[in-house]
Amino acid sequence: MRAVDIIAGKRDGKKLSREEIKFLIDGYVAGTIPEYQVSAWAMAVFFRGMTPEETAALTDVMLGSGSIMDLSGIPGPLVDKHSTGGVGDKTSLILAPLAAALGIRDPMMSGRALGHTGGTLDKLEAIPGYRTNLSAEEFRAFLAKDGFAMTGQTKDIVPADKLLYALRDVTATVESIPLITASILSKKAAEGAGALVFDVKYGSGAFMKEASEAEKLARSLVDTGTAMGKKIIALLTNMDEPLGNMVGNFLEVEESLDCLEGRGPADLMEVTLELAARMTVLGGKAETPAAGRKLCERCLASGKPRELFLANVASQGGNPEKLLELRGRWRSPVTAELRARPGGSGETYITKIDAFKVGYASVSLGVGRGRTEDTVSPTAGIQFHHKSGDRVRDGDPLMTIWAASEDGLAAALPRLEEAVEYGSAPPAARTLVLKEILSPLPDRSFQPETDAGDENA
Amino acid sequence: MRAVDIIAGKRDGKKLSREEIKFLIDGYVAGTIPEYQVSAWAMAVFFRGMTPEETAALTDVMLGSGSIMDLSGIPGPLVDKHSTGGVGDKTSLILAPLAAALGIRDPMMSGRALGHTGGTLDKLEAIPGYRTNLSAEEFRAFLAKDGFAMTGQTKDIVPADKLLYALRDVTATVESIPLITASILSKKAAEGAGALVFDVKYGSGAFMKEASEAEKLARSLVDTGTAMGKKIIALLTNMDEPLGNMVGNFLEVEESLDCLEGRGPADLMEVTLELAARMTVLGGKAETPAAGRKLCERCLASGKPRELFLANVASQGGNPEKLLELRGRWRSPVTAELRARPGGSGETYITKIDAFKVGYASVSLGVGRGRTEDTVSPTAGIQFHHKSGDRVRDGDPLMTIWAASEDGLAAALPRLEEAVEYGSAPPAARTLVLKEILSPLPDRSFQPETDAGDENA
Repeated sequence: MRAVDIIAGKRDGKKLSREEIKFLIDGYVAGTIPEYQVSAWAMAVFFRGMTPEETAALTDVMLGSGSIMDLSGIPGPLVDKHSTGGVGDKTSLILAPLAAALGIRDPMMSGRALGHTGGTLDKLEAIPGYRTNLSAEEFRAFLAKDGFAMTGQTKDIVPADKLLYALRDVTATVESIPLITASILSKKAAEGAGALVFDVKYGSGAFMKEASEAEKLARSLVDTGTAMGKKIIALLTNMDEPLGNMVGNFLEVEESLDCLEGRGPADLMEVTLELAARMTVLGGKAETPAAGRKLCERCLASGKPRELFLANVASQGGNPEKLLELRGRWRSPVTAELRARPGGSGETYITKIDAFKVGYASVSLGVGRGRTEDTVSPTAGIQFHHKSGDRVRDGDPLMTIWAASEDGLAAALPRLEEAVEYGSAPPAARTLVLKEILSPLPDRSFQPETDAGDENA
Repeated sequence: MRAVDIIAGKRDGKKLSREEIKFLIDGYVAGTIPEYQVSAWAMAVFFRGMTPEETAALTDVMLGSGSIMDLSGIPGPLVDKHSTGGVGDKTSLILAPLAAALGIRDPMMSGRALGHTGGTLDKLEAIPGYRTNLSAEEFRAFLAKDGFAMTGQTKDIVPADKLLYALRDVTATVESIPLITASILSKKAAEGAGALVFDVKYGSGAFMKEASEAEKLARSLVDTGTAMGKKIIALLTNMDEPLGNMVGNFLEVEESLDCLEGRGPADLMEVTLELAARMTVLGGKAETPAAGRKLCERCLASGKPRELFLANVASQGGNPEKLLELRGRWRSPVTAELRARPGGSGETYITKIDAFKVGYASVSLGVGRGRTEDTVSPTAGIQFHHKSGDRVRDGDPLMTIWAASEDGLAAALPRLEEAVEYGSAPPAARTLVLKEILSPLPDRSFQPETDAGDENA
């Protein structure tokens, strides 16, 4: 077998065998196949695509390059949620304790902010003392005790993905649906959950700008995950506007607490509850998403999820009392107010707050990072006093802004001003959850996972 | 400027600027842009193509990576011919002295045999003593004295092409028309000729199997060369069957001598004269190809081209007397005769002798090389006693075969047998020269080059 023939095969639209894919990826990880062959292959994949079988083989081969978290012995169904990234998206912080309160274990491994999108790890680390670098033993212990645990990926999780992603990043081969699918799924499979809910976002603040592209990725995730023996549901959700009223690391922890206390903003709660409903279906706690959603609403009202969230904060090194004390107060001293400036001729409605522009401005504020080596500020961010559809008058407070530096504030302000659009009529109601993508098998009566012992078979 | 943006631009079908192409190629040669970015870019070019302007910019940037042969001071028009490679193609050995006899200087830099195709350098080196590693001074001196000189490419000729070709070879990006065009044209431009005739071959023994593909390459060579200020004509010629009756290094030198003496086989003479006619047009010696062909026929009959060929042999280290003495005799002792075995039911015509199969078999005989580091035999080869269209009886001698080794002979024999097809009727006459591809400017009245001083402007 020769790498050049595998590249030529893909270039000419042939379906690669599992052996060919394994030869290429294993050789790459072992250093016997050079980067220049892998990057040419990745570009051929960009143009030719991969079948679900090829994508499943690639995912499985990548998964096999590292260790798989052993969650055998953790009782209860193991269900995780993964989002493709957005602005103001703090659903993970609400979903994990909510699912746990319903008896579903969520072994959550998250990433960091990069570019205009936020990262769950950065939000969690804004809680003073909170540790996201758990050992496998800690991860398992907290998962058993609190029903969920939240950590970063350990370095032995899918080393093939780390290598391949770094190479794709510098060779313009990131934007390939099968390669994105294998990257996401291999990491999620390695964390040991047998069932997954994907939040595939579309819109200006999402990786996929068009719903049609997001749907292709969702379909690929569902088909490939199903081919690997996982239970998968994907939702297409809108990311044209930031989710909720807070963008910022500590600010988003606060807003998550609001949600856990039944006071969350409508858009954020809508997306969270729809995702949570699918977790209950996959976890065998509800027959239908509608029934699952009711279950989740009742559970939130019970206060149990909030309790588990604070318990997890304590488990992972934070101080719940300190967190509650800082709430509503811990802000960067560099601050400004942005006021509404609707146009002249009766334009009194906010028609749009562009998520990409907000996310891009938030990097200047210190919320996110332009490069992976940058550090982020816990206390920088934006609080929205109005969102699209609201009627405003000239001079009404629109956003309160906190920045890590004066320069950052100065850079962000015009971008945030530009992010807001006005009109003379309210915009059409935004569809937050556009579509559910299920496995082609319409069988919803499968048995819930009761342990993870055979999930990696 | 970042390489990843240049790759992404090409991936998304954008036209690259000269500055972007220069950044990429210069950076690659300098070692600041890694191979994995260049190979991903090459694969994107494979899928997206390049405009004639992009291809011309790439060619020019590659040309600028090395030195350009200075032929200023060489009197007379400078016209070269380049073939895309075939089996039994010895036209260069006839064309160079023929053009020289008509006052056209041919600064010929050739390549070696690789795979099933032959190489002019290997044929010339079959002449005992003949040197193809001329210094620039020798090249210029012989060109001035004999009207032509034949050498290999020096190592400072287009180093970017050497790097890029080696990378393309292992990343399945050889088969890209703009990349092939830039590779060929940059080397041809570096040898200092202002006018070029391209013999773009199609058929089983050619690099391009289909005439339509060959036409695309021919069109790209003509358009790109024209954009670079060169005078270009391309001919599409057939390579389904070996050209002439000899395949082998010394054998092909002998057949070239036959042609120079007016005793060449019809197919070889047809292609040679049509190419020569275009050289006379580009060199300003004839108004039309038809007039040029007549000129060439008269010139061959004069014996002057044969004289110049032998003069060149002497100049480049060979011994003309020795060559003529070895003629018809110098053969490998490992030999066999292949006889006609037409089928039963009246199949008495040869309908095909497959050029690829012959070329492939000739590698086993020792004529060519499977890998660049292999050596070739001067005295191995095949003499055809019949070609397609001939009527044969069972047992008639079909080919005499000489091999460098018994093993090579054993490997080649069944392949050669397989290369021959029989039928009950003669095949349709083969069109040897299918098409002429000219610059879009229909102006044939341009002035001949009188010196090369400004050709590289």
